[in-house]
Amino acid sequence: MKYRVEKDTMGEVKVPADKLWGAQTARSLHNFKIGAPASMPLDIIYGFAYLKKSAAYANCELGVLSQEKRDLIAQVCDEILEGKLDDQFPLVIWQTGSGTQSNMNVNEVIANRAYQISGREVGDGEKPLHPNDDVNKSQSSNDTFPTAMSIACYKKIVEVTLPGLRGLQRTLAVKSIETEEVVKIGRTHFMDATPLTLGQEFSGYAAQLEYGIKAIETTLTHLAELALGGTAVGTGLNAPRNYDVLAAKYIAEFTGLPFVTAKNKFEALAAHDALVETHGALRQVAVSLNKIANDIRMLASGPRSGIGEITIPANEPGSSIMPGKVNPTQAEAVTMVCAQILGNDVTIGVAGMQGHFELNVFKPVMAANFLQSARLLGDAAVSFNEHCVSGIRPNLGRIKALVNNSLMLVTALNTKIGYYKAAEIAKAAHKNGTTLKEEAVRLGYVTAEDFDEWVKPGNMTKPLD
Amino acid sequence: MKYRVEKDTMGEVKVPADKLWGAQTARSLHNFKIGAPASMPLDIIYGFAYLKKSAAYANCELGVLSQEKRDLIAQVCDEILEGKLDDQFPLVIWQTGSGTQSNMNVNEVIANRAYQISGREVGDGEKPLHPNDDVNKSQSSNDTFPTAMSIACYKKIVEVTLPGLRGLQRTLAVKSIETEEVVKIGRTHFMDATPLTLGQEFSGYAAQLEYGIKAIETTLTHLAELALGGTAVGTGLNAPRNYDVLAAKYIAEFTGLPFVTAKNKFEALAAHDALVETHGALRQVAVSLNKIANDIRMLASGPRSGIGEITIPANEPGSSIMPGKVNPTQAEAVTMVCAQILGNDVTIGVAGMQGHFELNVFKPVMAANFLQSARLLGDAAVSFNEHCVSGIRPNLGRIKALVNNSLMLVTALNTKIGYYKAAEIAKAAHKNGTTLKEEAVRLGYVTAEDFDEWVKPGNMTKPLD
Amino acid sequence: MKYRVEKDTMGEVKVPADKLWGAQTARSLHNFKIGAPASMPLDIIYGFAYLKKSAAYANCELGVLSQEKRDLIAQVCDEILEGKLDDQFPLVIWQTGSGTQSNMNVNEVIANRAYQISGREVGDGEKPLHPNDDVNKSQSSNDTFPTAMSIACYKKIVEVTLPGLRGLQRTLAVKSIETEEVVKIGRTHFMDATPLTLGQEFSGYAAQLEYGIKAIETTLTHLAELALGGTAVGTGLNAPRNYDVLAAKYIAEFTGLPFVTAKNKFEALAAHDALVETHGALRQVAVSLNKIANDIRMLASGPRSGIGEITIPANEPGSSIMPGKVNPTQAEAVTMVCAQILGNDVTIGVAGMQGHFELNVFKPVMAANFLQSARLLGDAAVSFNEHCVSGIRPNLGRIKALVNNSLMLVTALNTKIGYYKAAEIAKAAHKNGTTLKEEAVRLGYVTAEDFDEWVKPGNMTKPLD
Amino acid sequence: MKYRVEKDTMGEVKVPADKLWGAQTARSLHNFKIGAPASMPLDIIYGFAYLKKSAAYANCELGVLSQEKRDLIAQVCDEILEGKLDDQFPLVIWQTGSGTQSNMNVNEVIANRAYQISGREVGDGEKPLHPNDDVNKSQSSNDTFPTAMSIACYKKIVEVTLPGLRGLQRTLAVKSIETEEVVKIGRTHFMDATPLTLGQEFSGYAAQLEYGIKAIETTLTHLAELALGGTAVGTGLNAPRNYDVLAAKYIAEFTGLPFVTAKNKFEALAAHDALVETHGALRQVAVSLNKIANDIRMLASGPRSGIGEITIPANEPGSSIMPGKVNPTQAEAVTMVCAQILGNDVTIGVAGMQGHFELNVFKPVMAANFLQSARLLGDAAVSFNEHCVSGIRPNLGRIKALVNNSLMLVTALNTKIGYYKAAEIAKAAHKNGTTLKEEAVRLGYVTAEDFDEWVKPGNMTKPLD
Repeated sequence: MKYRVEKDTMGEVKVPADKLWGAQTARSLHNFKIGAPASMPLDIIYGFAYLKKSAAYANCELGVLSQEKRDLIAQVCDEILEGKLDDQFPLVIWQTGSGTQSNMNVNEVIANRAYQISGREVGDGEKPLHPNDDVNKSQSSNDTFPTAMSIACYKKIVEVTLPGLRGLQRTLAVKSIETEEVVKIGRTHFMDATPLTLGQEFSGYAAQLEYGIKAIETTLTHLAELALGGTAVGTGLNAPRNYDVLAAKYIAEFTGLPFVTAKNKFEALAAHDALVETHGALRQVAVSLNKIANDIRMLASGPRSGIGEITIPANEPGSSIMPGKVNPTQAEAVTMVCAQILGNDVTIGVAGMQGHFELNVFKPVMAANFLQSARLLGDAAVSFNEHCVSGIRPNLGRIKALVNNSLMLVTALNTKIGYYKAAEIAKAAHKNGTTLKEEAVRLGYVTAEDFDEWVKPGNMTKPLD
Repeated sequence: MKYRVEKDTMGEVKVPADKLWGAQTARSLHNFKIGAPASMPLDIIYGFAYLKKSAAYANCELGVLSQEKRDLIAQVCDEILEGKLDDQFPLVIWQTGSGTQSNMNVNEVIANRAYQISGREVGDGEKPLHPNDDVNKSQSSNDTFPTAMSIACYKKIVEVTLPGLRGLQRTLAVKSIETEEVVKIGRTHFMDATPLTLGQEFSGYAAQLEYGIKAIETTLTHLAELALGGTAVGTGLNAPRNYDVLAAKYIAEFTGLPFVTAKNKFEALAAHDALVETHGALRQVAVSLNKIANDIRMLASGPRSGIGEITIPANEPGSSIMPGKVNPTQAEAVTMVCAQILGNDVTIGVAGMQGHFELNVFKPVMAANFLQSARLLGDAAVSFNEHCVSGIRPNLGRIKALVNNSLMLVTALNTKIGYYKAAEIAKAAHKNGTTLKEEAVRLGYVTAEDFDEWVKPGNMTKPLD
Repeated sequence: MKYRVEKDTMGEVKVPADKLWGAQTARSLHNFKIGAPASMPLDIIYGFAYLKKSAAYANCELGVLSQEKRDLIAQVCDEILEGKLDDQFPLVIWQTGSGTQSNMNVNEVIANRAYQISGREVGDGEKPLHPNDDVNKSQSSNDTFPTAMSIACYKKIVEVTLPGLRGLQRTLAVKSIETEEVVKIGRTHFMDATPLTLGQEFSGYAAQLEYGIKAIETTLTHLAELALGGTAVGTGLNAPRNYDVLAAKYIAEFTGLPFVTAKNKFEALAAHDALVETHGALRQVAVSLNKIANDIRMLASGPRSGIGEITIPANEPGSSIMPGKVNPTQAEAVTMVCAQILGNDVTIGVAGMQGHFELNVFKPVMAANFLQSARLLGDAAVSFNEHCVSGIRPNLGRIKALVNNSLMLVTALNTKIGYYKAAEIAKAAHKNGTTLKEEAVRLGYVTAEDFDEWVKPGNMTKPLD
Repeated sequence: MKYRVEKDTMGEVKVPADKLWGAQTARSLHNFKIGAPASMPLDIIYGFAYLKKSAAYANCELGVLSQEKRDLIAQVCDEILEGKLDDQFPLVIWQTGSGTQSNMNVNEVIANRAYQISGREVGDGEKPLHPNDDVNKSQSSNDTFPTAMSIACYKKIVEVTLPGLRGLQRTLAVKSIETEEVVKIGRTHFMDATPLTLGQEFSGYAAQLEYGIKAIETTLTHLAELALGGTAVGTGLNAPRNYDVLAAKYIAEFTGLPFVTAKNKFEALAAHDALVETHGALRQVAVSLNKIANDIRMLASGPRSGIGEITIPANEPGSSIMPGKVNPTQAEAVTMVCAQILGNDVTIGVAGMQGHFELNVFKPVMAANFLQSARLLGDAAVSFNEHCVSGIRPNLGRIKALVNNSLMLVTALNTKIGYYKAAEIAKAAHKNGTTLKEEAVRLGYVTAEDFDEWVKPGNMTKPLD
């Protein structure tokens, strides 16, 4: 392979000739061979691209960067955002906890690519842009990395997580309305209970997601606050006054999202509670989804030895050994995602709690886990919606048979003959394998006519009138 | 010991003669010898007392309970709330996951105590109140236990957690203002960095808590929704129409808190996402507090071999073997509480995700962990505030010596001579054990006069003008 | 209330006249009003009692403590172990993270109680035992608290956890043998699968617990290592040479358990990885038990609309509103315990990872969570065993009906006619609501005779011969 | 793109012409667009390759597969293991929880590649190997996926995790010996304490890792048990008798690792406690490493305003804004890895606890998290060892200055003049900013000669003689 020499304040280092990164990226590659290569999420790099461009605009507007340099920086940032330079960011999550090396990776690539754009070959002569003094102007890794995190995480939430969840929520709500007349047996403690409609059951799922979506949305105000302008320790050292507000304004403009400068830059560098907060809401949704997906696979269990009240789509052969088997595979993917998010929440909490003084140095691990959760949740919601929930059909015959046979219909008699006598009827029917009506009449507590009048499953799905 | 006989639908059971509980409580005591006795939090029992009284009022108003019975129930509930019957609730957390047995414990105690109030001896004759048919009227464990949880948890948050956190937040904010002129060295990566003021450092802590308090407050809308009226499976079976709204209105009135009936009762029985949501916010504050308490103990470290920039109150002898030792014990209690809350958050998440169909049967464990976290957080905030943070004093001499000696003051030269030359100066000073100024002049990059003009720690705590 | 004055190195403090504790306990009570009172587990206090007695014996044998003092200390320790002084230990978990104040609480109570035993009234004159110089001789909180933790935790494991688990494991193994001929349908993905015997199903549960018990046992070697003798920072300062070995020998003798002195005292003070390790094994068992308890409640679901393959004991009325309902309450208590243990595991991990230099200051929270988990696991296993698993009965009729009706019996044809044709048969039977045999013959793939010969559920519960 | 048609029991599906996978893989690609593409770890695929080859050998030996088919299967498996077919496995973690689709992906690729090897073009005519009937012979996804997991996880532990940890442990042990004479101040509660040697401090780290390595090793016996032979539900249906033992023998032979067939196949399919168990040990090591890495970065803190007792290698420029800054970046990478592993442990626990009946359907998420943790831990240990710990140098001047100045040396006087007088001396010195000796003499408790004789830091690093 051909190499060229790059240098930084520690000296010279060799870089593959066809790569645009510089000395600090090369050092990081050498020093951090941990886990899968290039694991730093590209979303973070794109966040940096928005940031570097916006910073250049702010710097220019405040008179500390020439318009020419601004435009060069912006041009490369646009290329990054178009995905043209994806292979120029080879670093891993498991580097310095401030993400300094990824910030420098971006600075170096912008500087070198700008040089190419200016018609020169990377490696020769004086560069038109200096990675530190120009591209990183008025910045520090300590405020840029969290800003890139905020941009990436916010975008992922609004572009992937929320749309996915909203789609699934809508389908559940529609299913709820479609089946609002389907009276079925209820189950508490996994045991037969009084009836409800399938629509009511699904309305609970829709409500859970509605609360969850709202919980996520509520946290976005905090997540929209950007650290940029805090520079090294939050004071704004070496940044022009008002630069923070201006840079945030450009980021909001370029992303189309309501970013603002953080009210307190010390908090924004030393803690990442906004990520903890929003991920807590993702965790809440994972808790909800796990319950919903579990219910759906159990309602669909069978075909002959389970509950079987609903049918879900058969998307693939279910077994490599059992022919004809159909499995609730979408529910399985969803619950695996939920388990992942519960774990990621702990990682983010543990990372968030261990900041020291002016800097939290668990930034990359927090960002990576957040982005994974946000994407998985959104993607899984789409997949579950499209390939499972949309196709759910009630098995009306099975549903009717189960509810009519249920001993818990006896509860309707509580207000007529009291809890104790009602219990006696249910126990007798259970013991003798008979119907409630038979035992009610035999015990002399209710006439057959009253029983039929009083014990109607459909009437049991609402309060007394 | 003397016993009397109580019975339920399963038959007779012996109860200590001086106890007011009945057969189902006695069965639970026998069947669930798990963990410390009587671990079901009294807060839950008090929540039940508000609920039972309110249900009686709603039932009476809707014409399904006599005024006499209502008043008897209310009188016992008031006694419970005064703490007079605390020893009548002997059950544990680790019982049925719906909390049915604690609901019945309350029902039984109310019925038997009402009998005493009516001038009879518990155990003889027909009772004026039936535990199921009167005290539990229009109710099920499945909607009462979550309602008692909501009442208990909401009260704990507004009575203990938030006041404690607000007090601590205020002290941190005041400290921030008091020390806004104290220029000190910053630290990133636990290494010397550019300066900031002690006030700025504390402003970050105050900001963290401000966000955290707001996050908790935001979740309260969901937590204020009560399951009561859903009865067995959420449909409201056997409850009069509009009873849910009315009962919630009475609970709001009796507690003075803004409770409302839940929009969706199926969600309210089958999931406890509101607890997951609010506890997520408690977890966020724990993450914040751990960082703050860690910083404070590290800033106070020494007295001679640590950082020593602040002094914290000496509240007790610190060591049983090392005479004269003073330790940051309040910070230790706080961080232990934070570790507890991170774990409780997992317990609550794992419990919340495993509901089945119409009922989540992890109610007691969720409530118990929530109440512990809410109390610990509030109490720890008060203790930390009173016994530590309020008494923090800056060690001005030490602070000044450290900042003036710092190599990172060189950062002020970036905008004058560029990052690379500034780095050269810092490295030379570090290597030679000299001052930045000496090296800056020796290397010929800056004159002594310019150095003094450009490198002023105080000027480095804000953006460029 | 009457008070007397006690003092320590910081001055005087008032103590209730009828209490035996001294100044440092009183200070801690005042400074740490966090959470429920007296939350420091008594198991830890008893651990200290073994330790203080053993230390006194070792000190005496090594010539640094008189025999008279040794015997006084031992006498009070024996009183503590008999539970006579339980109300003398009022401190909370949320104190200094080294547990210094509980160590001093024990030292003070021993000193004052010894004074009483000597026939004097606490408060007057010179004491025969000094809390620091005699009772705490050759000790520091930093090595005594972890030693008390090790003693308490080890005892809990061998006295509560392991016996409980072994009992449950035995019952599961016995059930497995009892039902080894009961052929039933298998379920994978919660869907019908090929048959197995109920005994095979239970053998899996028994195997899980067998591995879990072994995993706990394996960790005990590490847990048996005692920090005592490390004193303040692990060096053994102020303790006589060989005191560590001798004190551990006495602890082993007095407890009857195989304690030894820790190989590395620095590890034993600064980290509590032994607790992390053993609790990890408790967590493994919680994971197993959650699966087992879930299965059992699902197998018992019904009575008419669930799986209903087994019956579990009806220990109490299941519902306050639904008469005659029986619920799997023991399984619910068990799974709540499992959720608690998963959370406690995170607390212990988070606490264990945050030690600094020579001391981990999360000792009380680690010990309290460990002891809770160990007790809950043991108690829940006993309860589940006695009140549920022992009473499990197979519903033979239901089991037989389900297995004979299953479409997955078609799998037996794979080796005869290939996976694809077998799948075709299963799908046709599912679609047409017919039997496999009907479709197999209709499709012409198998004769009726061959079908009967090849598809026998009992033969499908083992490998091919 | 060119496509060919593949089919399975559900019908036809299009597959890119240049790909070797079949219908079921194509369906999975379509149905599970969740998260990053191709996220199923290649380690699992390689595990399958060992398994398929071994199964073919066992099947052949037992007379149910021809030698020709066996050799074809084995040849493709060897190609997979050489990495030649890496791009043929495009599926994600978030698929069916049994991993069926990845099993079928492997089966399909083997069948199609075998066809190519036989000189035919994929897509035309009858294939020499059938994915289900030949490649999957005597197998089910339910026993093969967990077997592939076991192989992959075991290999990762012995090839990456343990070597990495052992190397780091050795370096820590060597550092401990190298610095066993360097007397330094101890710190407890982050406050100055009595002295120890730097070697003693490092011996604690070495001991932690030694225990951790042993804990991992101990779990390997369980992890070595393979599910293969259980087929669909653990009974071994459709597999020849003794096939399980034989297949495990071949896996052991081909991998060179001590795999055996699982004692209980029901446990091996329905639970993955072995993964829970081993990952628990990884978690323990993460807890240890977090403490060690924290200590090292704190000991290295400064250069002028921290503790500064050791120097760590300067591997890269530390800051994009602060010139000359050197940061403990390796420690940061390590602690981020530790945070990840704590979270992964929760994911694995939550996944492990939710199996139902005969199958745990969280297999892929458990495997993926385990493999990530095992690799990260091993890689991070290597990186930390090579780029940080190996290069640690004590700053002897700083160490000596701090210890000699320490007030906690007064502890040496406890055994001479008692705890109370010693405390008085320390407090006076602290208050007056004087030395202990000055105050000891001034207060008249000790002569200057005795002081010099009794208070020697070096003597304080060991028990009394």
